[in-house]
Amino acid sequence: MIHVVLLGAGNVATHLYKAFEKSGEVTVKQWYNRNLKTIETYKNQVTITNDLSKLVEADIYILAVSDDAVSEISAKLPFENRLVVHTSGSVSVYDIDMKHKRGVFYPLQTFSKGASIDFSQIPLCVEAIKSKEDLPILKKLAKAIGSKPHRVNSDQRASLHLAAVYVNNFTNQIYRIAHEITESTGADFEILKPLIKETARKLDDLTPYLAQTGPAKRNDKKTIKKHKKALTDPIHKEVYQLLTKSIQKTHGI
Amino acid sequence: MIHVVLLGAGNVATHLYKAFEKSGEVTVKQWYNRNLKTIETYKNQVTITNDLSKLVEADIYILAVSDDAVSEISAKLPFENRLVVHTSGSVSVYDIDMKHKRGVFYPLQTFSKGASIDFSQIPLCVEAIKSKEDLPILKKLAKAIGSKPHRVNSDQRASLHLAAVYVNNFTNQIYRIAHEITESTGADFEILKPLIKETARKLDDLTPYLAQTGPAKRNDKKTIKKHKKALTDPIHKEVYQLLTKSIQKTHGI
Repeated sequence: MIHVVLLGAGNVATHLYKAFEKSGEVTVKQWYNRNLKTIETYKNQVTITNDLSKLVEADIYILAVSDDAVSEISAKLPFENRLVVHTSGSVSVYDIDMKHKRGVFYPLQTFSKGASIDFSQIPLCVEAIKSKEDLPILKKLAKAIGSKPHRVNSDQRASLHLAAVYVNNFTNQIYRIAHEITESTGADFEILKPLIKETARKLDDLTPYLAQTGPAKRNDKKTIKKHKKALTDPIHKEVYQLLTKSIQKTHGI
Repeated sequence: MIHVVLLGAGNVATHLYKAFEKSGEVTVKQWYNRNLKTIETYKNQVTITNDLSKLVEADIYILAVSDDAVSEISAKLPFENRLVVHTSGSVSVYDIDMKHKRGVFYPLQTFSKGASIDFSQIPLCVEAIKSKEDLPILKKLAKAIGSKPHRVNSDQRASLHLAAVYVNNFTNQIYRIAHEITESTGADFEILKPLIKETARKLDDLTPYLAQTGPAKRNDKKTIKKHKKALTDPIHKEVYQLLTKSIQKTHGI
């Protein structure tokens, strides 16, 4: 059994709490949040507290708090030499106060409020400064909630976090632009969904380099000109031009 | 039974031929291509020809040829007042010679060489100038290969074709950029695949507008600054800046 103390009450903390509770291998010994109201509904299931000085002993302390709070809260923890990890993609492991054994437990996925999260679909990036000593338990914790643990150093985690902005936020904005384009003629955005899914699925078989098709890759100037002419929104046109340039640079055109 | 004559031998023509053959409701009476060699392997299954003057009678003539060839080949067809359709996303239905009954049969999907195509996952955009008369058989043809037909006018089809460049080619290039970013630190691009799939899947529940998250949407200036600093490739940085601007414009930030 892994004994955990959870700190924070945002999306990540709440989803982790639920996953730990469901797992037979993890006990959440205590749940801390500065504002008790937020976690009050859980008080019959788990000991809750808003007092850092009352934290109990555990195998792992998980700081699922905002990026900016990692350093401050870790410094305030009233003990030392225990394993303290944060869950952020972009915060350094060294932001955790050096009196602790330090690590990272970063679930790489988009968390939506309300949506139930299937951790078996979420890679868990784990890191520990004393890796020999502390990585095994972080891996065990990831597996206990059905996730696949990946050992990832701080540079790699930062690049995954940045890349995630591209494949999630930016891709989603590309969908949004497509939505605006189809709406401008009353076409049904629904019709694009199989293509959207196939574009993502194709990566099971091919790298994005090999999966590329279309007018930019073919350097089909006639179609590119027609498309540019059809685009009335200046930012959509800029996106068209820039991504066409990017594709052509990638493929040496 | 729907009798079809197929013209052309590219990706779309070949995939359509295979789907028609598999369907119990369609007979390909003839397959035309200027170069007979390309379709020679099929000569024991179907009558092949490279001579337009020898085309037999059929319910539908499908021009699955390059965009530029639609007009020319349709003018050369040695008959009139029969239903002739093209399969292009961007060519006008009026590019087909006016001696024919004219229409469009446009499968909206990315076709990869070699990959087997499941038409049940492909929306078919159908259009006919004499819609009352000619649309029913185009819809029937789409259903015969398991596809869902969508009546789409020329403006809508053009916007779907343009939007498809965004959600397929541009999204795929975003994946490519993410691949380059992760490779720069030796991080494993594989770890991003669940996020890529979830980003596409989320559209089942939410519009792209509502699905948006991340630093641009939150206007998290600290993270945006950190990300820009980490990007060394000038085009990747431009893409970051432009799509951040686009997200912020969409969300009024």
